[in-house]
Amino acid sequence: MSNIPIAVDRLNQFVIDLTQKAGLPEEQARILSDTLIEADLKGIRTHGMLRLPIYVKRMETGAVNVKEEMAVVREAGTVRQLDARNGLGQVACFRGMGLAIARAEEFGLGACGVFNSNHCGALGYYTDLATEKKMIGIMTTNVFPLMAPKGGKEKVVGNNPLALSVPRREGPPITYDVATSTVSYGKVLTFLRRGEKIPLDWVLDGKGLPTDNPEELISRRGSMTPFAGHKGYGLAFVLEILAGVLTGAAFGQGLHSLYDADHFAGLGQFLMAINIENFMEPEVFFQRLEEWINEVKFSPLAADSSEILVPGELEQRSKRENMETGLVYDEALLKEIDLLAEKYSMEPLGKK
Amino acid sequence: MSNIPIAVDRLNQFVIDLTQKAGLPEEQARILSDTLIEADLKGIRTHGMLRLPIYVKRMETGAVNVKEEMAVVREAGTVRQLDARNGLGQVACFRGMGLAIARAEEFGLGACGVFNSNHCGALGYYTDLATEKKMIGIMTTNVFPLMAPKGGKEKVVGNNPLALSVPRREGPPITYDVATSTVSYGKVLTFLRRGEKIPLDWVLDGKGLPTDNPEELISRRGSMTPFAGHKGYGLAFVLEILAGVLTGAAFGQGLHSLYDADHFAGLGQFLMAINIENFMEPEVFFQRLEEWINEVKFSPLAADSSEILVPGELEQRSKRENMETGLVYDEALLKEIDLLAEKYSMEPLGKK
Repeated sequence: MSNIPIAVDRLNQFVIDLTQKAGLPEEQARILSDTLIEADLKGIRTHGMLRLPIYVKRMETGAVNVKEEMAVVREAGTVRQLDARNGLGQVACFRGMGLAIARAEEFGLGACGVFNSNHCGALGYYTDLATEKKMIGIMTTNVFPLMAPKGGKEKVVGNNPLALSVPRREGPPITYDVATSTVSYGKVLTFLRRGEKIPLDWVLDGKGLPTDNPEELISRRGSMTPFAGHKGYGLAFVLEILAGVLTGAAFGQGLHSLYDADHFAGLGQFLMAINIENFMEPEVFFQRLEEWINEVKFSPLAADSSEILVPGELEQRSKRENMETGLVYDEALLKEIDLLAEKYSMEPLGKK
Repeated sequence: MSNIPIAVDRLNQFVIDLTQKAGLPEEQARILSDTLIEADLKGIRTHGMLRLPIYVKRMETGAVNVKEEMAVVREAGTVRQLDARNGLGQVACFRGMGLAIARAEEFGLGACGVFNSNHCGALGYYTDLATEKKMIGIMTTNVFPLMAPKGGKEKVVGNNPLALSVPRREGPPITYDVATSTVSYGKVLTFLRRGEKIPLDWVLDGKGLPTDNPEELISRRGSMTPFAGHKGYGLAFVLEILAGVLTGAAFGQGLHSLYDADHFAGLGQFLMAINIENFMEPEVFFQRLEEWINEVKFSPLAADSSEILVPGELEQRSKRENMETGLVYDEALLKEIDLLAEKYSMEPLGKK
C-alpha cells in the first residue's frame, strides 16, 4: 500500500473525469464512480477501483457501449425488461432497480429483467437503492462460468451472487450480498501469489477432484467449488435462470468474461423491489426489525468470539472509517490507474 | 423397514380418514395428505409420514386449529396477508401460494405473507404449485431457532429454508429447496443413534465451539451450524425478515417448536409467484431453459462422478420409482401410526 489516503471527493472527481474522457456521458460516469467508491469504502475491494482499468479498456474497445441507448423493450404489469444495449452494467442496474421501485410504489412489487448487460460490480449497491424508498431490494446477476456443477469438471456455472437489502428506521440498511462459490477468485489468487496452499474444499482440478494447489484454478483447467456442495450449486443454477434465462440475456457458455475486452459480455440481471407498506405499516415493520436485530446481535457470544454481526454491518463500519480517513490503494493499482491518467492528459491520482 | 410397500392410494385414504377423525375438514385433510405423501415419494422422508403423529397430536391439543377460520386480512395491490389463525401450515401455504398466483396472473408478480401459521413440511410442494400455472414459485418460512449466529453460542436463528421452482415445457419442474443449516437435525440424530462421531463443522457445543459429538446438539445446549459460515447465517437472517418480520408472524425466540404441542407455533411464510409471460413468450423461455439444463447436465463428468443432476431431479426420480412400488416405512413409525389408527377405530395401516 502507498499509505497515502486519497479523499473520497477527490477520488470521485478523478473517476468521473477519467471515464468522461474515455467517452462516458456525465450521468453514467457519476453512477459508475459512486458504485466503485462505495465498494471500496465498504471494504469490498474486489469490486472497487481495482476494476476501473478493465472498465475503461472495455469502453475503449467498444465492448462496453458508452452511448445513451438503453431502452425498456417490454412493459407488462409489474415487470419491465431493459435492453442495456451492451452499456455499463452499473448504469443498467441503477436504472433497472429504479424501474422495479417505480412498479413497487404502485403495485407493492416490481421487477426488472436486464439483458445485453455487463459486469455490474457489488450487487448490494443496487439493492440498497430500494431501501432509500423504504423497500426491500433483491437482485441477482449471472457471471462468466467459473464453477463446475456437482459431479462435473468443466466450468459451466457462474458463481452467481444473490443480494437482499432491508431498510431500517434509521441509518444504513441490512445488506446481504454473497456469491455462490466457497471463496472468491481473488482469494485463491492471493494464496497463489503468496505461494501458499489452499484448503481442499475451495478448488477442483481439471479432473474435477479436490486440490490444494491454487495454480489449478488460476493457470490450469480447474474450477471453483460452490459453497455447501449441492446447496450452492443448486442456488447458482436457479439464479442463472432468473438472471439469464428469464431476462433474455445470454447464459452459461454464451457469456464472455469481463477481461475478454473484444467481446460483449451478454450478462443479465434480475432486480426486484418489495414495498413494505403493502404488508404492514412501515413503522411497525421497523420496530419488529429492530427487535429481530437486537435478539440476534446481543445473544450470548461463543467462547472464541467478541461480537455478533448482522449482514452488512461490517461493511458499514468500514465505510464510516474510510469516509473519515480516505481510501488507501496499493502501488501497483495506482500505477495502472495513473497510466490511464497520463493517456487522457490528467493529473495523476497517485501523487498529491 | 417392514419391507411391505404400501400403495399410494391406500396411504392417501388412510391419512385423509385419520385426520378427518381427528377433526380436520375434508379439504384440509386432502391437502395435508398430499403434501406428506409427495415428500415421502420424493424421498424427503423428514417431511413425510414421519410428522403425521405430531400433526395429529397438535390437532388434538388445539395447538393446530382445525376449524375453517383462515382469512385474508390485508389486500394491497399484488400483496395479500393471510391470517392462518393457527391452522395447519400446509393448508395456509397451499392457499397462500394460490393467492400469490392469482395476483401474478393479473400483474406478473404476486406475494402472500402468512402469519399465525404452523410447520408446513417441505417447501418445494408449494413452489411447485406455481409451476402448474407456468410461473416461477419462491418461498421461505421461519422455523424454531436451532442455529447460533456466527460468533454466538445460543440457538437464536432458525435454519430457515428457501425454495424456488421453475416450470419446464414438459414433465416435472426444476425444484430447489434447501435449509440454511449445514445438515439437517435428523442427520445428526442418525449419527447419535449409530453411536458415530460427526464431522467438526456440523454442530457447535454449548460454548459455541466445534464438536464431533452429536449429543451436544440433541441432548445438551449445542446448536447447528449454518452452511458456508456467514453466507448461510446471513441468508437465514434475511429469510427470517421476509417470513417472520414482514408477514406479521412471530420470529426468533417468539416461535414455538412443532413438538411443543401445548403452544401455537406462531410461524410465518412468505410466498411469491413470478409470471413468465410478463418477461417473454413462455415457449421461448422453455426453449432457453432446456438449453441451460442440457448445457450443465451433459457437461463433462468429474473423475469420481457418474452423473450431473439438476435441482429436483433426484427427488423426481425417487417419486417415479416410489409411485410404482409403493412406499415402505420402518416398523417403529408404523407402530406409532397404528396406535393412532386404533385410537380412532380404524383398520391399521401396517398390516395388509
